[in-house]
Amino acid sequence: MSRRLSEISWDEFNKIAPADKAPYLVENERPAHVLTAQQFNREQLDMLGALATQVRFIAKTKTGMKFLRDLLSHKRAMLYFSQPSTRTFLSFCSACEILGMSIGEVRDTATSSEFKGESREDSVRTFSSYFDLIIMRSEIGGLAERMAWVLSNTDRPVPIINAGSGKDQHPTQALLDIYTLQRSFEQRGGIDGKKIVFVGDLARGRTVRSLASLLTRYNDVEQCFVAPKQLQIGEDVLAMLKAAGVKYEVSEDFESSIPSADAIYMTRVQDEWDVKKGDSTKIDTSKYCFTVGHLVLLKKDAVIMHPFPRRNEISHDVDDDPRAVYWRQMRNGMWIRAALIATIFASDDKIRHYSRKNI
Amino acid sequence: MSRRLSEISWDEFNKIAPADKAPYLVENERPAHVLTAQQFNREQLDMLGALATQVRFIAKTKTGMKFLRDLLSHKRAMLYFSQPSTRTFLSFCSACEILGMSIGEVRDTATSSEFKGESREDSVRTFSSYFDLIIMRSEIGGLAERMAWVLSNTDRPVPIINAGSGKDQHPTQALLDIYTLQRSFEQRGGIDGKKIVFVGDLARGRTVRSLASLLTRYNDVEQCFVAPKQLQIGEDVLAMLKAAGVKYEVSEDFESSIPSADAIYMTRVQDEWDVKKGDSTKIDTSKYCFTVGHLVLLKKDAVIMHPFPRRNEISHDVDDDPRAVYWRQMRNGMWIRAALIATIFASDDKIRHYSRKNI
Amino acid sequence: MSRRLSEISWDEFNKIAPADKAPYLVENERPAHVLTAQQFNREQLDMLGALATQVRFIAKTKTGMKFLRDLLSHKRAMLYFSQPSTRTFLSFCSACEILGMSIGEVRDTATSSEFKGESREDSVRTFSSYFDLIIMRSEIGGLAERMAWVLSNTDRPVPIINAGSGKDQHPTQALLDIYTLQRSFEQRGGIDGKKIVFVGDLARGRTVRSLASLLTRYNDVEQCFVAPKQLQIGEDVLAMLKAAGVKYEVSEDFESSIPSADAIYMTRVQDEWDVKKGDSTKIDTSKYCFTVGHLVLLKKDAVIMHPFPRRNEISHDVDDDPRAVYWRQMRNGMWIRAALIATIFASDDKIRHYSRKNI
Repeated sequence: MSRRLSEISWDEFNKIAPADKAPYLVENERPAHVLTAQQFNREQLDMLGALATQVRFIAKTKTGMKFLRDLLSHKRAMLYFSQPSTRTFLSFCSACEILGMSIGEVRDTATSSEFKGESREDSVRTFSSYFDLIIMRSEIGGLAERMAWVLSNTDRPVPIINAGSGKDQHPTQALLDIYTLQRSFEQRGGIDGKKIVFVGDLARGRTVRSLASLLTRYNDVEQCFVAPKQLQIGEDVLAMLKAAGVKYEVSEDFESSIPSADAIYMTRVQDEWDVKKGDSTKIDTSKYCFTVGHLVLLKKDAVIMHPFPRRNEISHDVDDDPRAVYWRQMRNGMWIRAALIATIFASDDKIRHYSRKNI
Repeated sequence: MSRRLSEISWDEFNKIAPADKAPYLVENERPAHVLTAQQFNREQLDMLGALATQVRFIAKTKTGMKFLRDLLSHKRAMLYFSQPSTRTFLSFCSACEILGMSIGEVRDTATSSEFKGESREDSVRTFSSYFDLIIMRSEIGGLAERMAWVLSNTDRPVPIINAGSGKDQHPTQALLDIYTLQRSFEQRGGIDGKKIVFVGDLARGRTVRSLASLLTRYNDVEQCFVAPKQLQIGEDVLAMLKAAGVKYEVSEDFESSIPSADAIYMTRVQDEWDVKKGDSTKIDTSKYCFTVGHLVLLKKDAVIMHPFPRRNEISHDVDDDPRAVYWRQMRNGMWIRAALIATIFASDDKIRHYSRKNI
Repeated sequence: MSRRLSEISWDEFNKIAPADKAPYLVENERPAHVLTAQQFNREQLDMLGALATQVRFIAKTKTGMKFLRDLLSHKRAMLYFSQPSTRTFLSFCSACEILGMSIGEVRDTATSSEFKGESREDSVRTFSSYFDLIIMRSEIGGLAERMAWVLSNTDRPVPIINAGSGKDQHPTQALLDIYTLQRSFEQRGGIDGKKIVFVGDLARGRTVRSLASLLTRYNDVEQCFVAPKQLQIGEDVLAMLKAAGVKYEVSEDFESSIPSADAIYMTRVQDEWDVKKGDSTKIDTSKYCFTVGHLVLLKKDAVIMHPFPRRNEISHDVDDDPRAVYWRQMRNGMWIRAALIATIFASDDKIRHYSRKNI
């Protein structure tokens, strides 16, 4: 169906709401491009999570690793990161290498042709000449979508994965968050019916926006947004939740939000988006930090998450508590991305088959 | 015969004209180093083009890709790019990885030992300690030749491929241009007898100089140089063509050059070589751009080429015309470089054998 | 036994002398982390040297390279170099690739998450999430040890190799120096009883300090330190040698130290450690350079070494003398590192087995 992306104009495609773009981003029932968190429905989220778990188990043995590395050893991925990010970068590298893909990278624009006045369209089309997959991260909102549309109109429409664009979209972060919740609640009936508490800079963190949206795919999930007024979640997100019939709370009181939480999602102040440098320092965020003293307030089977990097939002001595799952969450990013890429290249069936036979 | 490179002094080797260096750059009838476009004779150009096409076809299947990736999986390549270039860099990466080579890179001199006062000779000799092939790009003319000579005098004379040095040499760009012309005229009797029109900044583009020189290997090729006076092709090139008995024209009128062209080779203003920054902006180059209106003037079976990156020399709406082959030209760079590297390591016979049996 | 590293506090571990840390850095009789030169005893040095030689011979054939590349093809290494070094970086890359490991790298802190205020502990723990081995180089003394201790207290205690930290430790450089001496004196009864002369900036070169220490593992080795007063070896090293009962000399006269030397170890001025920029230029080091005229003074079977990069400490026309082994020394770094990594991952037995059967 990706054919259809080439059948509409950029202006038309650009105007469509994220969730409604889904049909344009699918081909043979698999993602053709990964641009927005909202393009995934519950069935796909469940399928991807299950596949990630299979990849994770297969990778435990050398034989399994060999099987995985053979899957896409004929494919090559370009990581085009014009916005810095160690974690997302390494996670994607690892995911690609687990599947045997070769990797090329352009991280530093100073070493690229851009200074010679080339347009981004030409740059990305260049990458598509040499690679079979483009994973791109940019400070420019909508750039990944634009590039996917451009490539879909060429005779080499390689898939694009959005690894973060602008303030809005970071779909694979949302996927890894969902996968972490799936794993955390595996013995408790899954994500349905749980209460998720978001804490910190909710105004500017794209991960919270994406995750809040994806959680509407699940039944009876309650969302709670805890932040100082100036960093509170956007009205648009609340409107979206309301429209979806989702129960939510908005609060400034962190401590009282802890006892009822099934998952607490901490975030750091995103001061790189400050309009005036230093604006964030004027906001008192000291009450929005998880310290070791909060552990007694937390349910025994709840989990603490963080998209990382962290500053002081979670005290280091919380790390040893078994409910602190943020390190596992990070590693989940690698597994879910491997599952996603395998699916894009239609190798998911092979993984399921191997898993049934060997695990 | 590369032995002979160690038998002459640097001063002697340096004084030899590019075309006459050929015998010093061959070993067992294969290139030992790739330093200048002029080192290739027609037989070698035809052989490389044919091999590139075989690689291209073999790479279409997963089995074929596996065959290719096994060829040089025991070899390692160093990409030493002290002058930035996304395209050439990625193209070489891809070529190496297609053949299964591991890659090391030094792109940013800030991360290298050079600040500790090491000479370039020692740096390159260091690379030769760890790698089996050095692909280097530098703003310094003649550096690749110097390094090839230095290494030939050590007990680890690994091959050097010049990926662009100074204003003068970029031999693999010339090879990919020739390969693109070979493919474009495959059904029309090849390059012999065709008319090639070069347009734009012909004074400073090393790709035009190299290609003009290689085209003299073919019969009855006519060359036409279209540029504003200040950016016209050098007298030395014209003298070389005259000496070779090649028919050429020099013109300022772009439009009237289009109808008779078999290939139009557009180039951008190379303002990074401006003596005084901004000098180029004083020259009116607006008449040397290919727009969609020019398409009607162009022969039905002619082609439009560009070494990229482009600015406004070719309008984006020309891209959809089947005669616009510049994106294919870019991909050709990957295939011809793979063919070249395979030949250097004497794996060309294996490719031909596989091709005969399987394609 | 690496378990034990998690059983003591950081303060305790930090206070232990380098040589006494050894039992904390071993697991199943193999290194769990490589942090200091002094953690290796003679038996381990001999074993690693022998293994490096086997790797070197196995790598001479394509079949052998394939065997090696299969050993750790399921493992991934992170090279975290916040202090620049081309040579050590490339040498480790090569070592990893020889063993088939995939490589991730963080070299430029500008492209990393550090600007978002993440602690180094979190960064390194992040790497441990995605990789099976961390090779790190830092200008901060003790950082690698700290990180090894931190990781040992997590449920993913991946091994750390110190690739240079602060002014003090660069254990794999010491290993490659020992290996070069082992090879150089292979026909002469090994390192025992030899005289090693260190020349140049002995005050600040960590390679000399480490090597001086490791040489005490051998019998009757004489050490001679030749430097201008201001750059002479530290009193702590001399005290260590005295305590170990090692014969040593301290001298300012380079020429008279040459005739009795079995190995001359030249070093460059480490002016990057100057307290005030330019301090080093006030010291006359012109007499501490090995020129072609010194060759007649040198024993026929002695060797000249240098850790590189060099400036003018060794004249280029010395390179052709067979006693100049510094280029081989560089390549030895790759082999010994491959041997070390193979040992960490318990693949050393497979190498020995293959070697016995095939070489």
